[in-house]
Amino acid sequence: MDQLSRRARDLGIVVGPLPTGRHNAITDVPGILVGHTTIDDGADLHTGVTAVVPSQLGPGRWTLPAAVYTGNGYGKLVGSTQVDELGVLESPIVLTATLSVFRAADALLGYLMDRRPAGLSFNPLVGETNDGHLSDIRRRPVTEEHVLSAIAGAAGGPPAQGCVGAGTGTTALGYKAGIGTSSRTVRTGDIPATVGALVQSNFGGVLTALGVPLPADELVPDTDRTEPSGNSCMIVVATDVPLDARQLGRVARRAVFAMGRVGASYSNGSGDYAIAFSTARPDQPAIPDGEIDPVFAAVLDSVEEALLNSLFTAVTTTGVGGRTSHAVPHEAVIQRLSAAGRLAPRA
Amino acid sequence: MDQLSRRARDLGIVVGPLPTGRHNAITDVPGILVGHTTIDDGADLHTGVTAVVPSQLGPGRWTLPAAVYTGNGYGKLVGSTQVDELGVLESPIVLTATLSVFRAADALLGYLMDRRPAGLSFNPLVGETNDGHLSDIRRRPVTEEHVLSAIAGAAGGPPAQGCVGAGTGTTALGYKAGIGTSSRTVRTGDIPATVGALVQSNFGGVLTALGVPLPADELVPDTDRTEPSGNSCMIVVATDVPLDARQLGRVARRAVFAMGRVGASYSNGSGDYAIAFSTARPDQPAIPDGEIDPVFAAVLDSVEEALLNSLFTAVTTTGVGGRTSHAVPHEAVIQRLSAAGRLAPRA
Amino acid sequence: MDQLSRRARDLGIVVGPLPTGRHNAITDVPGILVGHTTIDDGADLHTGVTAVVPSQLGPGRWTLPAAVYTGNGYGKLVGSTQVDELGVLESPIVLTATLSVFRAADALLGYLMDRRPAGLSFNPLVGETNDGHLSDIRRRPVTEEHVLSAIAGAAGGPPAQGCVGAGTGTTALGYKAGIGTSSRTVRTGDIPATVGALVQSNFGGVLTALGVPLPADELVPDTDRTEPSGNSCMIVVATDVPLDARQLGRVARRAVFAMGRVGASYSNGSGDYAIAFSTARPDQPAIPDGEIDPVFAAVLDSVEEALLNSLFTAVTTTGVGGRTSHAVPHEAVIQRLSAAGRLAPRA
Amino acid sequence: MDQLSRRARDLGIVVGPLPTGRHNAITDVPGILVGHTTIDDGADLHTGVTAVVPSQLGPGRWTLPAAVYTGNGYGKLVGSTQVDELGVLESPIVLTATLSVFRAADALLGYLMDRRPAGLSFNPLVGETNDGHLSDIRRRPVTEEHVLSAIAGAAGGPPAQGCVGAGTGTTALGYKAGIGTSSRTVRTGDIPATVGALVQSNFGGVLTALGVPLPADELVPDTDRTEPSGNSCMIVVATDVPLDARQLGRVARRAVFAMGRVGASYSNGSGDYAIAFSTARPDQPAIPDGEIDPVFAAVLDSVEEALLNSLFTAVTTTGVGGRTSHAVPHEAVIQRLSAAGRLAPRA
Repeated sequence: MDQLSRRARDLGIVVGPLPTGRHNAITDVPGILVGHTTIDDGADLHTGVTAVVPSQLGPGRWTLPAAVYTGNGYGKLVGSTQVDELGVLESPIVLTATLSVFRAADALLGYLMDRRPAGLSFNPLVGETNDGHLSDIRRRPVTEEHVLSAIAGAAGGPPAQGCVGAGTGTTALGYKAGIGTSSRTVRTGDIPATVGALVQSNFGGVLTALGVPLPADELVPDTDRTEPSGNSCMIVVATDVPLDARQLGRVARRAVFAMGRVGASYSNGSGDYAIAFSTARPDQPAIPDGEIDPVFAAVLDSVEEALLNSLFTAVTTTGVGGRTSHAVPHEAVIQRLSAAGRLAPRA
Repeated sequence: MDQLSRRARDLGIVVGPLPTGRHNAITDVPGILVGHTTIDDGADLHTGVTAVVPSQLGPGRWTLPAAVYTGNGYGKLVGSTQVDELGVLESPIVLTATLSVFRAADALLGYLMDRRPAGLSFNPLVGETNDGHLSDIRRRPVTEEHVLSAIAGAAGGPPAQGCVGAGTGTTALGYKAGIGTSSRTVRTGDIPATVGALVQSNFGGVLTALGVPLPADELVPDTDRTEPSGNSCMIVVATDVPLDARQLGRVARRAVFAMGRVGASYSNGSGDYAIAFSTARPDQPAIPDGEIDPVFAAVLDSVEEALLNSLFTAVTTTGVGGRTSHAVPHEAVIQRLSAAGRLAPRA
Repeated sequence: MDQLSRRARDLGIVVGPLPTGRHNAITDVPGILVGHTTIDDGADLHTGVTAVVPSQLGPGRWTLPAAVYTGNGYGKLVGSTQVDELGVLESPIVLTATLSVFRAADALLGYLMDRRPAGLSFNPLVGETNDGHLSDIRRRPVTEEHVLSAIAGAAGGPPAQGCVGAGTGTTALGYKAGIGTSSRTVRTGDIPATVGALVQSNFGGVLTALGVPLPADELVPDTDRTEPSGNSCMIVVATDVPLDARQLGRVARRAVFAMGRVGASYSNGSGDYAIAFSTARPDQPAIPDGEIDPVFAAVLDSVEEALLNSLFTAVTTTGVGGRTSHAVPHEAVIQRLSAAGRLAPRA
Repeated sequence: MDQLSRRARDLGIVVGPLPTGRHNAITDVPGILVGHTTIDDGADLHTGVTAVVPSQLGPGRWTLPAAVYTGNGYGKLVGSTQVDELGVLESPIVLTATLSVFRAADALLGYLMDRRPAGLSFNPLVGETNDGHLSDIRRRPVTEEHVLSAIAGAAGGPPAQGCVGAGTGTTALGYKAGIGTSSRTVRTGDIPATVGALVQSNFGGVLTALGVPLPADELVPDTDRTEPSGNSCMIVVATDVPLDARQLGRVARRAVFAMGRVGASYSNGSGDYAIAFSTARPDQPAIPDGEIDPVFAAVLDSVEEALLNSLFTAVTTTGVGGRTSHAVPHEAVIQRLSAAGRLAPRA
């Protein structure tokens, strides 16, 4: 079964009533590209880099309205205070492994410097989670080339999900996790628009799909019950709805709220962050808050589905220390959801 | 069926693995009392006052460590900035109806002044939600006597739930809602402790119990589909676990996160606030953050169950404008949860 | 000497290089009105109400972009969380005495309800400081009529300053203080605009004018050295520069920063808050942050001068408990500033 | 004149009434060490690294209570969100140049990893300012060796100030600036304690000493009037007063408030951050907030004097692009302060 056919929706798991965008991915937001560099030596290294690249950034427009929300600050989101202050994103968003975050930030800085040879101020935005359960993070394996390659390779269309890029070595909710994405189309006022989410999932709790608990210790009897430490979740939300930084802060909060829907335990050690930005043209006025509820609904649903996709598309992986993280067993999941009456007819 | 036998757990809806306290109520935290004043004229007024009274406050101890979290600030939480700054609670917590919030705050201030005749600085903490769907809020019906009566009548043991006090006129998730409470016992380090939650529920979304959606428009076919405006949720969390104000801020965040578990839509108009405080003795050092996860789990579960209780114990109510808010239909709920295999054997 | 001729600038104290508006007052911002109700029984009551009324609010426009900043949260700013969330001001700003703040908020709510007879949601914004050094605050003397009268009487032109309205009983920096105001004209881009500040001063420290310390215990030898408790400062900044809520948050921070220029000690008990709002038309796009520095400079200077004015225009007052708070002795001040070479030629 | 004899106090500029510690330096707080690596090629590179090393951190104690405050977030403070969440410092504090901040963070991470060979989670805290006015920041000249050397060389006693370490290339208030430090001894309750500050100054405004303006364009007629871009200020406050993270947040705010005393313009482009931590033993309970005012006073005064020292000890420097930043002219300063009657007898 190829990766894309393993997405939650392909199994009949349909989150919410809103239609998805064409690729059910953050790349459905016009101009958003996604690229990955996967570092997997088949032994101790299972890590990488994922870049979300807004192609709107470039000569003529060096910033987009943006906000971050820290649900739990046990983690790093390089660049966050400047986003708080100025309300703008001025770089691709790079996700990687915890102890490599500064090397990745330095690499992204180099990329930005190359793009603006006279520039003296840059704010690279880099998030991380701790993939040390499966990868030897102390080797700090991420290089400048890895970061530049993820950015250079960023493309539209359906992004790779699961064990790729910054999700190569992550685990969540008892299973192998990774990168996931999803999107929704909404109408605000009378204008159609898109909300897209991309997640790097790596947190504790009990996997829950459409309200049905799918505990790893029941579905994968030989699963390693060692809870990984320093687990976290990075969430990126993009939209072409015209929103200002304050409103994007409200959006970012709801992205973290959505983690509860898939069974997150919001534990002490989980650094849970969301970044939200808008690609709307600068001359489009922000919508009134009274019209924002469809956007909030789309955020909750697309983040929920992106989280499910990050697990459902991942595959069983053995990493450092011989630890194995098991993929979600699709057939068992289908059985449970079917028994609970929650499964849509398979597409 | 009397009110207490209508709680979620009495129907076989068991949230999480942790044991409840004796009364499954915030009053299981030693020293915490709850009192209600219900204002219900059978016609246009369905409102009231609920007071959570920490009996630890009094001569010898005028403050408890506390924090507030604003999930969505569309609402009022009188006193919040001082709690943010000083990290302490210095009054009973009073909940009431939105346009009566300042009269209630003034009444609570009077109560505090009477207790400290020489005092010149007080910080009454008063939350509100908008019960205007069923009650004529523009009459501002809450008087000083109503507030003082709720405080004076506060007691331990099982508190009244549902359509009482500040929950008399609230609605949530398509149904009649109100006041709900629940508790959990936890061990931090090796010391047993209690976490209790009390909620005033009044927000939008689709009711979900143990992951099973229970949409009002399916279960109560003639339900009024007008979404009430200005809906909100006030959550109070008490614990005897020694936590400092910073940690209680982490607790309060998770209280708002728990709203998602019962189907909250986290909509624009919903002012969602949580208040958390600790009754531990001042000479007990705060537990390390590394031991806080059981508290977080207890918060998520007790708030979830308190929210369910606020709906399950409420009864169908007709109010201002002839609008009717229907109680959750217990039998239909049992049927759906049973079909989904989520029901525990009835106690 | 009449009150207006006692302002700092009339003595030759010129803060910064920017020109003032016509009246050197917050009312120089087009549409901003100021009204006072003074409560002074010549004995134990020295308090009142001050209202800053943006006449832009009314049918057709019910909100203005706004932000609050809490420099020190030991105090109450009723309505602040909703301003944080939605970024708007929807009421006149009312200032009053600490224990009367909820009665004032309820009165302001009544005013708003009368203006919007069908409205069910309102966010009155009311600040307070503790004038208990000179006034019997426990009597909670402020009535609805006092609040409505301050709003109804609000007018443009030069507002009364010193011992009026909410400043009737306040003290600051060792002297009698009160209400003060000032303004600056600025150019952002190429458009002329106005920044105005109004303060209710009531905080500790050593009065400093243009860098010259003017300690009360030197200049008023028989001064009462009892430091009033619960002293605070409320600052209102209005501007017609188009700024969004995020930018107004930056403005509000600088208003609190300006307190240091007149010698504030930023003590534990001083609840220091700033409110900033913009009256620009909704169709005017916010200026870029890169052009905001003239606004910041105008905020720092106008708040500094408003603080000086609040003291220089106040008069010696004896209040509750027979305590006397002395006016700044103008001649001694002039002497010191002159000796330090800081005095401009008298206008 | 050697560097230490150029400090503000040596010129008779005495800030506030509190006594300094022995060395009038952050190193007066027991256990606090300071180290510098200066990078100065006599041509285009004028930059470096300064490390504040709490020797309390080590086997047996890996964290100290801490907080950060962002006065203006236009800048980077790597590690800040985790300090916000957990309220602890777990690394030396490293200051450096803006575009080198990630390389410095990665180097500090390496240092931490070496100290805890089994560790998988670290939160290096690294601040920066933009010294691009005098140094070619785009070369990112700071290496791991520079960082490790600053930490390894950290020592007690009087630290070097002015054009050293992270202050080698900075400018402030129109003059050459750099690193400055100062301390105060205070009594809280009846226990003597120390508050120390260290700053990396690099921001706009008009230098003001003891209230006397000392404008560069008057005192150094040929001064380059080009305002450097991306100027900022990093402030570190250490104390042995027992304070918890919430209280240290209050301390950190006042550190930024103190910038106004020396004439800061708090401009848009200045990233102004403060870090505060306590070295008190974990078994010492935090002091009550009611006793914190002496600490606040000591913070305001020691930061003010540290800022003055950072300028007064710096020397005229010519850097990249041939730009020269002039030292504060001591004689002219003495003359002005003397004329204003603000000078204490020279020590």
